Amino acid sequence: RINPDRLWDSLMEMAKIGPGVAGGNNRQTLTDADAEGRALFQSWCEAAGMSMGVDSMGNMFATRPGEDPDALPVYMGSHLDTQPTGGKYDGVLGVLGALEAVRSMNDLGIKTKHPIVVTNWTNEEGTRFAPAMLASGVFAGLHTQDWAYDQVDAEGKSFGDELKRIGWVGDEEVGARKMHAMFELHIEQGPILEAEGKDIGVVTHGQGLSWTQVTITGKDSHTGSTPMPMRKNAGLGMARVLELVDEIAWSHAPDAVGAAGHIDVYPNSRNVIPGKVVFTVDFRSPDLAVIEDMEKRLREGAQKICDDMGLGVEFEKSGGFDPVTFDPTCVSAVRSAAERLGYSHRDIISGAGHDACWINKVAPTAMIMCPCVDGLSHNEAEEISKEWAGAGADVLLHAVLETAEI
Amino acid sequence: RINPDRLWDSLMEMAKIGPGVAGGNNRQTLTDADAEGRALFQSWCEAAGMSMGVDSMGNMFATRPGEDPDALPVYMGSHLDTQPTGGKYDGVLGVLGALEAVRSMNDLGIKTKHPIVVTNWTNEEGTRFAPAMLASGVFAGLHTQDWAYDQVDAEGKSFGDELKRIGWVGDEEVGARKMHAMFELHIEQGPILEAEGKDIGVVTHGQGLSWTQVTITGKDSHTGSTPMPMRKNAGLGMARVLELVDEIAWSHAPDAVGAAGHIDVYPNSRNVIPGKVVFTVDFRSPDLAVIEDMEKRLREGAQKICDDMGLGVEFEKSGGFDPVTFDPTCVSAVRSAAERLGYSHRDIISGAGHDACWINKVAPTAMIMCPCVDGLSHNEAEEISKEWAGAGADVLLHAVLETAEI
Ligand SMILES: NC(=O)NCCC(=O)O
Ligand SMILES: NC(=O)NCCC(=O)O
Repeated sequence: RINPDRLWDSLMEMAKIGPGVAGGNNRQTLTDADAEGRALFQSWCEAAGMSMGVDSMGNMFATRPGEDPDALPVYMGSHLDTQPTGGKYDGVLGVLGALEAVRSMNDLGIKTKHPIVVTNWTNEEGTRFAPAMLASGVFAGLHTQDWAYDQVDAEGKSFGDELKRIGWVGDEEVGARKMHAMFELHIEQGPILEAEGKDIGVVTHGQGLSWTQVTITGKDSHTGSTPMPMRKNAGLGMARVLELVDEIAWSHAPDAVGAAGHIDVYPNSRNVIPGKVVFTVDFRSPDLAVIEDMEKRLREGAQKICDDMGLGVEFEKSGGFDPVTFDPTCVSAVRSAAERLGYSHRDIISGAGHDACWINKVAPTAMIMCPCVDGLSHNEAEEISKEWAGAGADVLLHAVLETAEI
Repeated sequence: RINPDRLWDSLMEMAKIGPGVAGGNNRQTLTDADAEGRALFQSWCEAAGMSMGVDSMGNMFATRPGEDPDALPVYMGSHLDTQPTGGKYDGVLGVLGALEAVRSMNDLGIKTKHPIVVTNWTNEEGTRFAPAMLASGVFAGLHTQDWAYDQVDAEGKSFGDELKRIGWVGDEEVGARKMHAMFELHIEQGPILEAEGKDIGVVTHGQGLSWTQVTITGKDSHTGSTPMPMRKNAGLGMARVLELVDEIAWSHAPDAVGAAGHIDVYPNSRNVIPGKVVFTVDFRSPDLAVIEDMEKRLREGAQKICDDMGLGVEFEKSGGFDPVTFDPTCVSAVRSAAERLGYSHRDIISGAGHDACWINKVAPTAMIMCPCVDGLSHNEAEEISKEWAGAGADVLLHAVLETAEI
């Protein structure tokens, strides 16, 4: 068993870096706070006897040697970056739970045939730079590094420049590492495990995601002196498309969700009818056909709404991945670890995207979930208990030990 | 007659300060560009033999002495500040048209009994600091100066600090000046004069305005893993309220307009359901009862929408003024000047708010409008012709000369 108190202390220590405004965290990717969090994580890894490698996307890999130097390593980890108003556990639990698993192996003098690598993936959240899971996506060959480097934040700063600025461009070629397997522990970010009183979610699948950036163009003009029939109000067009998004998602519920989290209005002045609105529609489903249907209905419906209003509209796919089926052997390792340890568990589909969803394309991968209070995540009030965290890290340790061969 | 070429040259010269991104201007109030525009205007006034006074709200008053030192001055002017993506004429024509009228009086050696004062009012637009017409509002006693100084922009900078920073806190007590009359020349910002081929709008009334800042509170949570029935999507609530605003305005059209130009979404992240949206609803009508009805229906309707969705909602009146009836004597002076000069004209209601609307409360006031292309304003593509500008300034000159007594 891992040491839940030590794990909790590390979680609380990390949460001091990039504090939020309401008890959570704002440690967005490639900020100074991210750099500080990385340095702390590195110092902890080194104290646990691991050696750190960093690739050219800033992904961090801390290695605990195995007994067979030729055996491929077993990876475990997640991400240390957060939403602008994020929680203390989303991602962080997966990284520090993995670190705790290694610390416990050290305490217990456990040796494995395969080396163990604890990983922190860069820019999982996708808030500052879209898309989400950017660096694990480059690692898995979904995006090129050049394309990733060119992604810009709201201020026009590029991923490549910011990675350099915080000093975390490593010398390893991204994606060069080969993996025996990879495990990611994560909070559920949804309500199911807590509602059913289960300790552990054995993640068999991940739902797919589609991000469509919609740009509606009207004509900015005076709110007072432009007669109603002459208006080309891009804000009103956006309102109608948001209603459509909700309608489409409900038509597939409970097998789909949909909303827009990001909305920018131009010029955003009280007495100017919006001439342009840019917003991102997020659709998800475990069923690819449903995602495709939702995308199609969005494009057709928004086009019709805008045509009827004399507005222009453009669509750009700004992120997405297909539904994921995790590796049966790795999933079994998770399930039997929970069983062995006496934790209640159920199979579950991940509602969120995770680095594991991309790594699953290049290595056998599985995920472990633990409950979170009220299913709340991407909110500073995100909360879990020390017991839940400990159970998740226990299962992670045992699934990894089985896979890495003691 | 005024010199239309000289007026046009000054308009083009001023437009070089705080250029926009698409041929217009971004010379928002109390920015460095505003300070530069003020300095240029002051140098022109001094070159025309006028002496400059500045009050504690930064309002500028350039005086041409009259023959009777005890006679109250006749004021004319408007504002030099612009929208973030504004045109070259909104406000500026009224200030530089007034300057041109004085230059022409000088050329023609015209003396008046009453002194003449050319005025630039601070923060007419209300984009950076709400409400609009802030400094003329303090001058007319609608707001206190302390309250005005405390208004903050989107970055939290206060009006008072920014006025000090750009160096335009004058030593005159605001509102201490007494006026014989005040005239404001302005572009129509609407389509009527151009459509009817009229040179001049004789502004008899101004429509009233109501700004309501609406704050909708939901719960920020994950767009992927929060089931549809558990969502408290403040963005969707905002969409429904925007639809309601449109419906309310149309129900009173053509005697009312309504829209929201300013919308801020929090935390504005692609994968976070909006937990809070703040937006400003702009309703206008020449009929006070209609404005009151629209405000009431907005509050009741938005409350119901939000109650049904489990969202919180708060309303704050963030700006507004009642419909205005301009002074009959001043209005007659405008109409007879247009008549005498042979310009086609019609009576018109101002769709926008203007400093004249506030000054009308403390002095006999009227406005003169000239057409603008496609009725377009609050847009960098705002356009007028040199002839239209010249006709407007001619009528301003003649109305002022009649009122100031040659
Ligand atoms: N786990 C998580 O919140 N990832 C961010 C990517 C997503 O939006 O699903
Ligand atoms: N003239 C003008 O655009 N004034 C700004 C105040 C308003 O929104 O009417």
